[in-house]
Amino acid sequence: MKNIAVCLTPELIHLFDLKGKTVVVVDILRATSCMVSGFANGIEKIKPVASLEECKELGKNGYLTAAERGGQKVEGFDMGNSPFSYMDPAIKGKKVAVTTTNGTLAISKSIGAEHILIGSFLNISRVAEEVRKLDKDVIIHCAGWKGAVNLEDTLFAGALIELVQDAFEITSDDARMAFGLFAQHKNDLFKIVSNSAHAKRLEKFGVIKDIEICVKRDEFDILPYLASDELRA
Amino acid sequence: MKNIAVCLTPELIHLFDLKGKTVVVVDILRATSCMVSGFANGIEKIKPVASLEECKELGKNGYLTAAERGGQKVEGFDMGNSPFSYMDPAIKGKKVAVTTTNGTLAISKSIGAEHILIGSFLNISRVAEEVRKLDKDVIIHCAGWKGAVNLEDTLFAGALIELVQDAFEITSDDARMAFGLFAQHKNDLFKIVSNSAHAKRLEKFGVIKDIEICVKRDEFDILPYLASDELRA
Repeated sequence: MKNIAVCLTPELIHLFDLKGKTVVVVDILRATSCMVSGFANGIEKIKPVASLEECKELGKNGYLTAAERGGQKVEGFDMGNSPFSYMDPAIKGKKVAVTTTNGTLAISKSIGAEHILIGSFLNISRVAEEVRKLDKDVIIHCAGWKGAVNLEDTLFAGALIELVQDAFEITSDDARMAFGLFAQHKNDLFKIVSNSAHAKRLEKFGVIKDIEICVKRDEFDILPYLASDELRA
Repeated sequence: MKNIAVCLTPELIHLFDLKGKTVVVVDILRATSCMVSGFANGIEKIKPVASLEECKELGKNGYLTAAERGGQKVEGFDMGNSPFSYMDPAIKGKKVAVTTTNGTLAISKSIGAEHILIGSFLNISRVAEEVRKLDKDVIIHCAGWKGAVNLEDTLFAGALIELVQDAFEITSDDARMAFGLFAQHKNDLFKIVSNSAHAKRLEKFGVIKDIEICVKRDEFDILPYLASDELRA
């Protein structure tokens, strides 16, 4: 039986051997929720980049630019990190260059895995279906917040484990913790995520609506994945 | 109000500013449980060291030597990492040099804090009393397993937070997760710890009795702390 484990923050990813495995990257608030929303709304591809400079440079080459730092849209870029800006009909058929505080780092630190999938509550059943089909060991890579663990990504990890637990073995405490956390809060996800440290950080920017959408399950039947250095769906 | 946070593994301790803070180091299975048992049984002092060589060297200078690697006693040393070997009347008045896989590393990585206390279920109320008295921000530093998070140390963190929650503020998700995990399992600690990854590792060495003692609360009214490079109580 294949194994499913949880890397609670990118700071711990070096403890995992990625080779031959399926990695599911998750940044519920809000990078991967945005990416899933964007592909569902017709974005052609997304290029995750580390720096604001690279992002700006791609803007000169036909990309829309999306940049977030510390929870806020960076001035001078086309989009920030709200899923609603990824639902704008104007993005259809566009290429988007994205840089965020945590999510894009988790993607780049997942390189070396056999498959890198983009997960969020918005497409969780589709992700579950795919990891079953791929039938490799799975690492759920939580983006966290500046290296620290966070509730919302860990809850997603637990939710995904619940969906595939009949097909995968749980042998690590990280997976047990995530699974237990989700079991405890599955019926009040919005409430617990609204009380998370990151929700408190976002609160002052008035983005409670972002949180509401980010904890909705299966809004979109779409699966973004990394192909070379770009995301496609 | 002072803050209480949880560092889930020594791999994340660099994210915390230790200056002026109280750090509680915990390695339930089994380093800190052993240390607490040892002081309760009359050990004079414990010197935590990183390498087997340093430990052996101190053995030539009047120290008893205790060495564990990968869950097992290392051959050629006086003691391993079972709390029962720390309850032997022969240790009374002795100095012990200790090296373990995770616990001694967590202690050395806590250096820089104002106070470094040794926590376990065996002395949890005494630890709670002391962190209240010291009235500094608290970081509960879980030793984990080779860098990975573990259930038993996280459960201790949650239990300690429960004891002092009226006096400290919780603002980080790590503390929320630990507190939630403990709340979920407080009435079946032995059961969940027996199913942890580390318990499974220890199982083959027949140490279920060690786990039984390590989840007992308040067996000892003793508080080991780091003074310079040695532990005293």
